[in-house]
Amino acid sequence: MPEAILNDISHRRYNPLRGSWILVSPHRTKRPWQGQQEKPGTIELPQYDAKCYLCPGNQRASGDTNPNYDSTFVFVNDYSAVKEVQEEYTNPNAEGSLEDSLLVAQAEKGKCYVLTFSKRHDLTLADMSPNEIVKVVQMWTDIYAAHLSPDSPLAGLKKTGFVPPRSPGDDGARVQDQYRYMQIFENKGSAMGCSNPHPHGQIWMQTSLPEEPAAEMEQLRKYKREKGTHLLVDYAKLETEKEERIVFQNDGFLVVCPWWATWPFEVMVLPRRHARALVDLNEKEQAQFAEAIAEVTRRYDNLFETSFPYSMGIHQAPLEGSEEEIECSSLHFHFYPPLLRSATVRKFLVGYEMLGEPQRDITPEQAASRLQGCGGKLYRKKLA
Amino acid sequence: MPEAILNDISHRRYNPLRGSWILVSPHRTKRPWQGQQEKPGTIELPQYDAKCYLCPGNQRASGDTNPNYDSTFVFVNDYSAVKEVQEEYTNPNAEGSLEDSLLVAQAEKGKCYVLTFSKRHDLTLADMSPNEIVKVVQMWTDIYAAHLSPDSPLAGLKKTGFVPPRSPGDDGARVQDQYRYMQIFENKGSAMGCSNPHPHGQIWMQTSLPEEPAAEMEQLRKYKREKGTHLLVDYAKLETEKEERIVFQNDGFLVVCPWWATWPFEVMVLPRRHARALVDLNEKEQAQFAEAIAEVTRRYDNLFETSFPYSMGIHQAPLEGSEEEIECSSLHFHFYPPLLRSATVRKFLVGYEMLGEPQRDITPEQAASRLQGCGGKLYRKKLA
Ligand SMILES: O=P(O)(O)O[C@H]1O[C@H](CO)[C@@H](O)[C@H](O)[C@H]1O
Ligand SMILES: O=P(O)(O)O[C@H]1O[C@H](CO)[C@@H](O)[C@H](O)[C@H]1O
Repeated sequence: MPEAILNDISHRRYNPLRGSWILVSPHRTKRPWQGQQEKPGTIELPQYDAKCYLCPGNQRASGDTNPNYDSTFVFVNDYSAVKEVQEEYTNPNAEGSLEDSLLVAQAEKGKCYVLTFSKRHDLTLADMSPNEIVKVVQMWTDIYAAHLSPDSPLAGLKKTGFVPPRSPGDDGARVQDQYRYMQIFENKGSAMGCSNPHPHGQIWMQTSLPEEPAAEMEQLRKYKREKGTHLLVDYAKLETEKEERIVFQNDGFLVVCPWWATWPFEVMVLPRRHARALVDLNEKEQAQFAEAIAEVTRRYDNLFETSFPYSMGIHQAPLEGSEEEIECSSLHFHFYPPLLRSATVRKFLVGYEMLGEPQRDITPEQAASRLQGCGGKLYRKKLA
Repeated sequence: MPEAILNDISHRRYNPLRGSWILVSPHRTKRPWQGQQEKPGTIELPQYDAKCYLCPGNQRASGDTNPNYDSTFVFVNDYSAVKEVQEEYTNPNAEGSLEDSLLVAQAEKGKCYVLTFSKRHDLTLADMSPNEIVKVVQMWTDIYAAHLSPDSPLAGLKKTGFVPPRSPGDDGARVQDQYRYMQIFENKGSAMGCSNPHPHGQIWMQTSLPEEPAAEMEQLRKYKREKGTHLLVDYAKLETEKEERIVFQNDGFLVVCPWWATWPFEVMVLPRRHARALVDLNEKEQAQFAEAIAEVTRRYDNLFETSFPYSMGIHQAPLEGSEEEIECSSLHFHFYPPLLRSATVRKFLVGYEMLGEPQRDITPEQAASRLQGCGGKLYRKKLA
């Protein structure tokens, strides 16, 4: 690689997707670690846990009983962060007052789902086959399709049989709100604030476009206007050529440790052709996408022979937006895992990172080469 | 308070200092917590630890021996994230190439100090009196003054006897570099990635203005241009009047849970009058500042009767910058603590927060009122 010197000097890298910089200190992994040790992820779990609120047939906090589902199951989060129905809020501040520029608030409505990935309490995505993961991809697609604004150019692209579950107390008389944006994500492992090992993710919809997708949208739009091409399609092409940060690839998707990665083993999953959202993927691409997810999660577990914690999620076109916003959107997947050196030693993004800017120790090239070498079978007995 | 309804509805608040939004879900603390528990901070420690690389008289990784210092002691970090001397880097990318917009890097030089706050291994800022903390404030000021660009309007405001310590291997022949920015911070507690309980902070200098101070600078400058006044001075005035988010105040400083706080018990320490940097504080103000720091850290420990983890740091004028940049800068202090419910239950900023936007559970008003009520003596026997 022409930039071999970057393995040795402290430098900053630019993230064109967010429009921000990170600090890279490759020499810094040499320092000894005497700090906090994480508890390694629990691996020995029963296939069914009578106390788990996600297992089939069990009762939840709301009093509802889960159906005897097989693969996926969706319900409205019993402790949603955004609420569907709430009191109105009127800005109380006089125009031009100090309050009006320094104490600004706006009401935010939304709806939060929980989505299980398997009926089995003891599995993770890393234990599941691409054929099993594709059901999760299809369910994400269905849920996304069902909540698209009827005015979106994406509406109607995919038939969806998904009937949005209602919140407890909602008798069905209320017309469901149209939301602006849907964030699909998973927190895996107790190090990532996850309190239940049953494989599941979350889906939050809300009336505003949140900060991260808004920053990306800005950058994607600018790039499209300036160059006429799509930033992430160009990036996938460039990484395929360079072969310096590739973790895995198939005909449809590329898995890379991005040039600008913040977390030690952060990866991005990118379609090779321009896809605005999940509904743009055909069946073959859904399978390729599922394979890519399987490859990432299995490699993560193999890397330190542990159930690897991470947060991951999908960025894609907003549910409602201008034509330009939707056309410039690019479907992609971020994995943000905290571990750095071993199953128990994580990277802390703390003082300098909170007050200065994100800082990483190993280079993305080093991370990619290690993850590339971790393919093959799952290190532990395949449970599924 | 007129916005009582904000205690009950999900809403977003605007952070005018960074120009970004956060999501507030006050109803969400009702959910039960079954996730990770933190190890409470260690409180029983010896006054001197022969294995600690920060205690007076001990040897460090570099081979150097610490002097028998009394209060503070500064040295160059043996594992600095930015290096003073390193190979040059020339951008290898052809202008207009894909690489040139998607694989952007720049070399970054810098220097990192470690600063102890006390010779005693077993103390924290919460155990120290304002008179002891003022020595730390003076040392920060000295170090900052010693690294100011000679062209800065702030240069020469404070006499400083501080002689910058040299990196191992630096024989003193080399002319010291001028850096653009200095980040003073402390990571406290193992939950914040701190690996040594001996009370200490860090100071990183570098050739670029990092992301966070750059974002604040942008907002402060805009506000100054538009209104002619200083954002944080106006904000301190407004909070003094409102009395809704005040944790502590004295004649010179205000401690508030800011309207836009992200972390559950985040606070900001603000001077009432406009100060651009530490060197603008007179002796009386240094004492008031030290009192404010003592009040914050003691209240934190009292809140859950634990040694409260946090990252904290100072934002102030860059070491080198245009006159406008320096004049619009406003000295302030951020405390970012992770705990939410108890000594062992923290807030996780994970999936939604990494992919969507920061989200908090209790309101800043609720946090401020709890911290306000935690004044008085330190809950544990004062060790100093
Ligand atoms: O410098 P330390 O204390 O070894 O390390 C700690 O603080 C640094 C600056 O915030 C972080 O980059 C590290 O991840 C953290 O463990
Ligand atoms: O929703 P959960 O799994 O209870 O909670 C977890 O994920 C949320 C969304 O990222 C975070 O806000 C919480 O801090 C975290 O503990």
